[in-house]
Amino acid sequence: MDNFKFYSPTEFIFGKDVEQEVGKRLKQENVTKVLFHYGGGSIKRNGLYDTVIKSLNEENIDFVELGGVKPNPIDGLVYDGIELCRKESVDFILAVGGGSVIDSAKAIAAGVKYDGDFWDFFDHKTTVKEALPVGVILTIPAAGSEGSSAAVITKEDEGLKRGMGSDLLRPVFSFSNPELTYSLPMWHTAAGIVDMMAHIFERYITKSENVVLTDRLLESTLVSIMEAARVIITDPENYEARATICWAGTIAHNGILGVGREEEWTTHGLEHELSALYDMTHGAGLAVMFPAYMMYTLNEDIDRYYRLATEVFGVPHDYEHKERVAEEGIVRLVGFFNEIGMPTSLEEADAKKEDIPKLIEKLKINKGESFGNFTTLTLDDARAIYELASEEE
Amino acid sequence: MDNFKFYSPTEFIFGKDVEQEVGKRLKQENVTKVLFHYGGGSIKRNGLYDTVIKSLNEENIDFVELGGVKPNPIDGLVYDGIELCRKESVDFILAVGGGSVIDSAKAIAAGVKYDGDFWDFFDHKTTVKEALPVGVILTIPAAGSEGSSAAVITKEDEGLKRGMGSDLLRPVFSFSNPELTYSLPMWHTAAGIVDMMAHIFERYITKSENVVLTDRLLESTLVSIMEAARVIITDPENYEARATICWAGTIAHNGILGVGREEEWTTHGLEHELSALYDMTHGAGLAVMFPAYMMYTLNEDIDRYYRLATEVFGVPHDYEHKERVAEEGIVRLVGFFNEIGMPTSLEEADAKKEDIPKLIEKLKINKGESFGNFTTLTLDDARAIYELASEEE
Repeated sequence: MDNFKFYSPTEFIFGKDVEQEVGKRLKQENVTKVLFHYGGGSIKRNGLYDTVIKSLNEENIDFVELGGVKPNPIDGLVYDGIELCRKESVDFILAVGGGSVIDSAKAIAAGVKYDGDFWDFFDHKTTVKEALPVGVILTIPAAGSEGSSAAVITKEDEGLKRGMGSDLLRPVFSFSNPELTYSLPMWHTAAGIVDMMAHIFERYITKSENVVLTDRLLESTLVSIMEAARVIITDPENYEARATICWAGTIAHNGILGVGREEEWTTHGLEHELSALYDMTHGAGLAVMFPAYMMYTLNEDIDRYYRLATEVFGVPHDYEHKERVAEEGIVRLVGFFNEIGMPTSLEEADAKKEDIPKLIEKLKINKGESFGNFTTLTLDDARAIYELASEEE
Repeated sequence: MDNFKFYSPTEFIFGKDVEQEVGKRLKQENVTKVLFHYGGGSIKRNGLYDTVIKSLNEENIDFVELGGVKPNPIDGLVYDGIELCRKESVDFILAVGGGSVIDSAKAIAAGVKYDGDFWDFFDHKTTVKEALPVGVILTIPAAGSEGSSAAVITKEDEGLKRGMGSDLLRPVFSFSNPELTYSLPMWHTAAGIVDMMAHIFERYITKSENVVLTDRLLESTLVSIMEAARVIITDPENYEARATICWAGTIAHNGILGVGREEEWTTHGLEHELSALYDMTHGAGLAVMFPAYMMYTLNEDIDRYYRLATEVFGVPHDYEHKERVAEEGIVRLVGFFNEIGMPTSLEEADAKKEDIPKLIEKLKINKGESFGNFTTLTLDDARAIYELASEEE
């Protein structure tokens, strides 16, 4: 187990109807003026927008609104948000939505308190020294941004999708009501499920040794996610399954399951080029890239993949044929992704094999000539993984 | 899954040599004067006392000392600590030790900021509204107090051992270096292991339904604890096993494994009477009381005990004989406790069957005529459980 720091100060408020208390919770923070930040029309259609407005008004909390965050949130709206917060002397940002809204809120929160261009954080030219506090009402369990230090923003002009992180950006509070996810289309539910599973894989498929406790916690969470996903397919209003998915998405990325381990974000990096080029749903891109990455790196640590296969996917033990067992685990992962309606090849995700050179070009800008810690990948390796992802069977 | 709030703002700093940074970490808190609170001579013998003094001096941090905390910490020293903090204008308490030291620190932290008698918190006459911040260097993985909101203090004159909790008492930071536990005698190591397992049982043996994710997380932690314990018996300086125990002890009680579940603290209550009457090590008392409680309540929820037996203790499935399987799980738990040198009957723990009326008398004062939520126990039930615990086989 490696030395670690773990710091997750977010207050998680979870369950039925909890979002109705958001005004009261904000009152505790002694806010002067709130930026109510959200995405498209879904929160207006499902009544959450009205719930929030009512709760803010009941507590006489002054606020301004900024909607319009898109999936793969863009820099343009972040600049707008920073300007609005400064003009209106906003001292708290309430993000109501999924990871895109929360990430946009975090970027604004850091940008407001920074004299330079907020993109400097994503260029890793500087780190966050101060930020507005952010609170969350979560509507899409997926990115785990409600409990994480991370944010990912796309610089639209250049097609660059990049992440950064700071403990100062961990939300102060996070409301999550599983019932709010009943109306989420299966596509978004499934993409969110892939995203949280990917957050676990990035912690699980590493070279860290002697981390049996977190190995088991990661495996337990994966098994629970898949079990709940299979319930939701036929019963989208099953509270318990939705609750499992909501909470699993949070713990998959707030750090608790990865303490003392290396983390490996290579597959996320490979996927970011897909979602930047095609505006692809992040989870769909991960469903395409993860099996390909796993197959390509199988022999890097056959025991790790063997353990994944047996402990998570229920492949029977066969120590004489470890590689076969390990591969069968990946085959079952692909089967699961298909079962929940996710694409598992570039073509199924409406991406094109002939665009691979473009992906590699952007990858070179974002990640350099080589990257990764489970194994070091060159750009040639990355090309081979994209090619593996494009082979329709 | 029940609605829940989960809030664990403690910064956990974990691994080799981390305690050397305590001065730097305190500096971040802008402290004026620190109370350095500890127990007996063990930290002087193993060098930790000197490490702390050196680190405080390097950062020019002003401090006063208060040692002498005993296992089952008593009210007398808490009063001394409160007086000392007021006299010396202390604004931060650094607890260096195990649960007893940390609990004593928490009681002082709350007491300093309260005009009345600090015991009012433990009498549940009032709740904590304000407290000094507390930081921790953990030396005994057991109570989980380094990450919890709870504290337990014994009122010496009346032999009352009581607990209370407040999120204001969650430590600001907690250092844990598994190497510091190498020199811990096996008895204390084992008692700590029982304590953390008990914290898991109090969350696991409940009537909460549809909590499969936390069921699995709890089971994973139990399995990992027992596996590591068996390594430590023969190899007390095995870093990885010690690290597993240290971190498991923290997550067993900071709340993360119990979200959305009922909690059941009845067995802790039954044990508190033992440690109050005999000054028994808390973990040893729990090793005596838990199997008895489980056996007595077996038919309250046979499926729960069946699951415990099969998932944690590896008892083979036999749906035709659920009760036998469930009982076998408890038998294996007793076996494990014996394996690590813990007593599993009153007599083995130097307690006497004829004292049961005294235990019941105190229990009545502390818990009333009936208590519990997994099942409601009367004082007659409690008597039967103590009697069950006294049957030597």
